[in-house]
Amino acid sequence: MNVLIVYAHPEPQSLNGSLKDFAVRHLEAAGHSVQVSDLYAMNWKAPLDASDRTDMPAGARFDASMDSKHAFEHGTQSPDITAEQDKLRWADAVILQFPLWWYSMPAILKGWVERVYAFGFAYGVGEHSDARWGDRFGEGSMAGKRAMVIVTTGGWESHYSPRGINGPIDDLLFPIHHGILYYPGFEVLPPFPIYRTGRMDEARFAATCDALGQRLDDLWTTAPIAFRAQNAGAYEIPALTLREDVAPGEHGFGAHISHQ
Amino acid sequence: MNVLIVYAHPEPQSLNGSLKDFAVRHLEAAGHSVQVSDLYAMNWKAPLDASDRTDMPAGARFDASMDSKHAFEHGTQSPDITAEQDKLRWADAVILQFPLWWYSMPAILKGWVERVYAFGFAYGVGEHSDARWGDRFGEGSMAGKRAMVIVTTGGWESHYSPRGINGPIDDLLFPIHHGILYYPGFEVLPPFPIYRTGRMDEARFAATCDALGQRLDDLWTTAPIAFRAQNAGAYEIPALTLREDVAPGEHGFGAHISHQ
Repeated sequence: MNVLIVYAHPEPQSLNGSLKDFAVRHLEAAGHSVQVSDLYAMNWKAPLDASDRTDMPAGARFDASMDSKHAFEHGTQSPDITAEQDKLRWADAVILQFPLWWYSMPAILKGWVERVYAFGFAYGVGEHSDARWGDRFGEGSMAGKRAMVIVTTGGWESHYSPRGINGPIDDLLFPIHHGILYYPGFEVLPPFPIYRTGRMDEARFAATCDALGQRLDDLWTTAPIAFRAQNAGAYEIPALTLREDVAPGEHGFGAHISHQ
Repeated sequence: MNVLIVYAHPEPQSLNGSLKDFAVRHLEAAGHSVQVSDLYAMNWKAPLDASDRTDMPAGARFDASMDSKHAFEHGTQSPDITAEQDKLRWADAVILQFPLWWYSMPAILKGWVERVYAFGFAYGVGEHSDARWGDRFGEGSMAGKRAMVIVTTGGWESHYSPRGINGPIDDLLFPIHHGILYYPGFEVLPPFPIYRTGRMDEARFAATCDALGQRLDDLWTTAPIAFRAQNAGAYEIPALTLREDVAPGEHGFGAHISHQ
């Protein structure tokens, strides 16, 4: 199978760098093809702006959505965007790997999402009607592909527990899992978090690689997070609120996951 | 009073641009001093990297925290970082204004946080002991200052409601409100969200400005979000989980807000 690792860390000689190298070796040893988008090494341009459309008329008002749509439809996207979209089309599975900085992904990775996720490619896909609100949240261009997050934190696991001060890791990752990966159709696997990275010695690194290797071996069999599909009856359209009989009384991120 | 607006939108002739201009005029008319960090106009460098420490030894392994600490302590931070830290010191209130892209702030603003929030400035401040876990979440360099988010979304208000498919807006903003603003000591005001920006006409824009003007008039009197202070008894240290008798049975982001 084809695996794309989108990797965001500025230092190759880091825990993240070592884990990324391990993942590549492990996947290739299992017979998979691997591409790595090493965003720092690529000097990836983070900010989405008018230069992302190569035929932007001089002096025109830039509209992030409409100019993305135009560029995607007319083949006038910046070449670095097109190259990443081709990698996504090629991939059977996508891994986002990053350190958690200020409770989210690093800016350079956020900018990869903003620029590569063009209108017509990752959003603005499919019909909007009384019955459907676009091909998203369970449908879309990435349908049939799997995705997983590998994330490191300096904080302790308890700090990210259900009553931990940082908030639960699953809730911090919800905007990524649900909003960035499930949105264009990925099946999203449970994440692989590594906590308290300041306390990593050889033995713990070896154990971490063992556990990560197992997750990579199970990439095609692990059950995805059971997010509810947008257009399959769970939501009112166009309000996009859960129907009364779905998860009655529940609210918040967790209500969008089926526990059946 | 002194107000810093950190503003992230690529197009001056946008709703965001118009709202930013309105906010500046309104605050100045009320006698306040205003500075704007217009990140796109400044061509702000988004990715945090080794060049942020100007005396980085050639070939050395870059450590995001330790090199930030060194640079902050030794006056060898990149000048663009120092300038923003000076604005934060000057400000009595800080407004972050941005469009919600993929359920979070734009990459360029995330990169402002990552680079300006140096070790020793916004984190790594204060003692770590059995009784305290640093000056953070209610204490820190920004104590006594207020902060507020102005955020625009293409999606409808119902999509961001308690049972809306995107997740509740307050939960989506929690990593910013609590993790980025409350962390270094800001008092965080309720946000000012503007939904369904594709349906903005003159009348609605005027009403939006009226409402925003009121919020700006009330910047010093609005009750902040009642986040629980880390070192004031609500949390076990060092586990940083809520004590059993605090919000018993509650978990998730909402448990960190006092409803007394």
